[in-house]
Amino acid sequence: MADVKDTAGSKPNQVPPPEDAALDLEPETEQAFLDVLVSGDEAGVRTLLAELHHADVADLLERLNADERARVVEILRDDFEPKILSELDETVRDHVIECLGVENLAAVIAGMESDDALEVVFELDEDEQRQVLDAIPPGDRTLIEEGLTYPEDSAGRLMQREVVTVPESWTVGETIDFLRQSADSGDDDLPARFYDVFIVDPAHRPVGSLPLSRLLRTRRPVAVADIMDREMKLLPVATDQEDVAYVFRQRDLVSAPVVDDGGWLVGAITIDDVVDVIDEEHEEDIMRLGGVKEGDLYEATMDTIRSRFGWLLINLGTAILASMVIGLFDATIEQMVALAVLMPIVASMGGNAGTQTLTVAVRALAMKELTAANAWRVIGKELLVGALNGVLFAGLIGVVAWIWFGSVALGVVIGLAMIVNLLVAGLAGTTIPLMLERFGVDPAVASSVFLTTLTDIVGFFVFLGLAALILL
Amino acid sequence: MADVKDTAGSKPNQVPPPEDAALDLEPETEQAFLDVLVSGDEAGVRTLLAELHHADVADLLERLNADERARVVEILRDDFEPKILSELDETVRDHVIECLGVENLAAVIAGMESDDALEVVFELDEDEQRQVLDAIPPGDRTLIEEGLTYPEDSAGRLMQREVVTVPESWTVGETIDFLRQSADSGDDDLPARFYDVFIVDPAHRPVGSLPLSRLLRTRRPVAVADIMDREMKLLPVATDQEDVAYVFRQRDLVSAPVVDDGGWLVGAITIDDVVDVIDEEHEEDIMRLGGVKEGDLYEATMDTIRSRFGWLLINLGTAILASMVIGLFDATIEQMVALAVLMPIVASMGGNAGTQTLTVAVRALAMKELTAANAWRVIGKELLVGALNGVLFAGLIGVVAWIWFGSVALGVVIGLAMIVNLLVAGLAGTTIPLMLERFGVDPAVASSVFLTTLTDIVGFFVFLGLAALILL
Repeated sequence: MADVKDTAGSKPNQVPPPEDAALDLEPETEQAFLDVLVSGDEAGVRTLLAELHHADVADLLERLNADERARVVEILRDDFEPKILSELDETVRDHVIECLGVENLAAVIAGMESDDALEVVFELDEDEQRQVLDAIPPGDRTLIEEGLTYPEDSAGRLMQREVVTVPESWTVGETIDFLRQSADSGDDDLPARFYDVFIVDPAHRPVGSLPLSRLLRTRRPVAVADIMDREMKLLPVATDQEDVAYVFRQRDLVSAPVVDDGGWLVGAITIDDVVDVIDEEHEEDIMRLGGVKEGDLYEATMDTIRSRFGWLLINLGTAILASMVIGLFDATIEQMVALAVLMPIVASMGGNAGTQTLTVAVRALAMKELTAANAWRVIGKELLVGALNGVLFAGLIGVVAWIWFGSVALGVVIGLAMIVNLLVAGLAGTTIPLMLERFGVDPAVASSVFLTTLTDIVGFFVFLGLAALILL
Repeated sequence: MADVKDTAGSKPNQVPPPEDAALDLEPETEQAFLDVLVSGDEAGVRTLLAELHHADVADLLERLNADERARVVEILRDDFEPKILSELDETVRDHVIECLGVENLAAVIAGMESDDALEVVFELDEDEQRQVLDAIPPGDRTLIEEGLTYPEDSAGRLMQREVVTVPESWTVGETIDFLRQSADSGDDDLPARFYDVFIVDPAHRPVGSLPLSRLLRTRRPVAVADIMDREMKLLPVATDQEDVAYVFRQRDLVSAPVVDDGGWLVGAITIDDVVDVIDEEHEEDIMRLGGVKEGDLYEATMDTIRSRFGWLLINLGTAILASMVIGLFDATIEQMVALAVLMPIVASMGGNAGTQTLTVAVRALAMKELTAANAWRVIGKELLVGALNGVLFAGLIGVVAWIWFGSVALGVVIGLAMIVNLLVAGLAGTTIPLMLERFGVDPAVASSVFLTTLTDIVGFFVFLGLAALILL
């Protein structure tokens, strides 16, 4: 970030000096802010925050501890910038809303775009929702109440209600005049910023989309119907946000129309909301693979302990299961302690090889790159990878065990166990996420628990079992 | 995807029926395509592919095996759509380029936008680069050669050279006339699609940006200087693409100007390229945490085996290290086999608790949410989480061990070891990625190896060591 320049405040004819990054949230800015906050200088806090972009103020609020954050919200209460609220992480937003109080919150929500307002209201509990909805203007209220009827994480929740639509019969000139007039008249239901004009039939069903750059480059008498794109993606309100992101990515879209069950245009989704969805889905994937919840960083310590406890408890259960497998062979281990020394190696290699496969499969499923059509090919490849790496590592660890404990037989046993476990790892690493997906469970959530339980149990059982058979 | 409608080909006044999704890459489309390909019907292959969006053709090529893919490229060779090439995964693209041959490739590259062409040429080896550059028109060649001088993964590599710029002195009307004229004249150096007009001073340094929606809604006589945003982000050509993505996300941008060292406008980056960067960076994070390389899914089996071997080899080394720690206590284990049965539990819980912390830290570093300013607070929180969950799980496993092996002392030993290991996990899960970041190493690459090595070694050493001290 240090080398991104910002021209805010610079005179038109000056090249901004490279160090002019006052509007970025540099560590120094953060420290300066904390100093002013601690000193109790309210005016100073206001001045510093006024210089920051609303997204940076949101970041700053996220990084403060609860007391500091409450203090800042109190200082900003009467003129809290609505855009800050929509940039906040959910956990932090809950806290800020609590600090704001219902009345101030209603004022803030009335100042937001319809999609952002909807997101905030949705997360309130029923009582607060009622109070807030009663306190905002009727027009906004109706839009939000309608929005709440759409399923969570659907296109209906993401969309802006404000859309620019024109009839098929219009020309470029008429469209531009309409846009200018509605801007002048102040009676403005158009979005603050938009990228496409949607052309609708008399029943308000979309028939084409027209990028603004094309509209601008066409002469006034040309009919919009002659230059619009008829090949356009219509997103039904119930479309899952993951599918929305997929369509935007696949078609390089910046905005797309949303239609209800009757095919009527009810709103539009823009790329900035889709980028948030992409980030959110990414966070879900990576966090769930690691066994943590989204928003963990900002959660209070007790909430974090509680939410991580569940995952660790499952892991304790599976670890005890693996130990019971070892317990089956306690007599064998008693006769040959080398087995206890070596057994974690087989389990660990299986777990790691399986995690490699699992990561590729989970990511490919999330990106819709792993489908029914190529599943068998991928499984086959993973088995081959497991088999060949199994043979290579069997050789390596076999020699190590032989030299370390002076027993060729021990080397053979651990080598065989390694091959079996890496094969199991390759098979399980692909089939577990595929089966979870098939049953409608997010493969990122539970895959790694199933996988490591399996590679631990197989690793211990095959190694100790072969040892009992061959060595004793 | 099944519920995303596509209106292509439908008449303006018809609402597309919900099942009209012919242009999506459904499993049936994929199967139908494979059938036609296998039957050797070249015309059929061409017809089917012509109905698909270029991004879907790219997906299809990715899912084919090498032979099938070579066959398809051969069929398409003479009219290969340039946009397909830029949508392909890197590994698959290399293969397609190889199948196309240098001469066809040059024709394809000449048809691409400057940023996409640059990306493809960059990945060729030096010899191929020379051949391709010699075969394309001089204008395109110069742009690409210039682009190659910018650092990899920089703003200079991402940007399009085609930008719309107007002088400060112009009005809205003059700007619109200019756009219409350049469209008419055919002499068209403007981008196919754009979202902002950049206002430049006489030295071609950007002084403001103007969203098209605002341009369209303003009357002709108004000066662009009066309605442009002066607060705009200038991205120096050398800016890392991760920082570019951060700025776009933070400011909800759809396009941003790129400047060279002198502050001159040299290009613009658009949101579609940034979405690709976001996906790429996320793939890097998740894959590296899992110990695999990007593009693994499409790699040939032998390449996958080779690239995963390295990571597993490191893991073998650390597993042997952990085994050597166990080996220190072989006499202790010989006297009490229960230790061998229980010891993997302590190590496994440490590894999992550490991975939770590590995932949160790596993700937060990637999203610039974990900084020097809040590092100590996060470390403190993780230590507290480790301590409290440590005490809870110490109680649980202590009771289990006591009941299982009838020894209170054994329960106390494993409980103490659990507390120590979960504390170490919390500390290491935050400090390892922070230190790697400080030394300029991507924390996602090596964090988990360091972490599990540590939690294994500490887990085994503390548990067996305490047992040797207390129990025997």
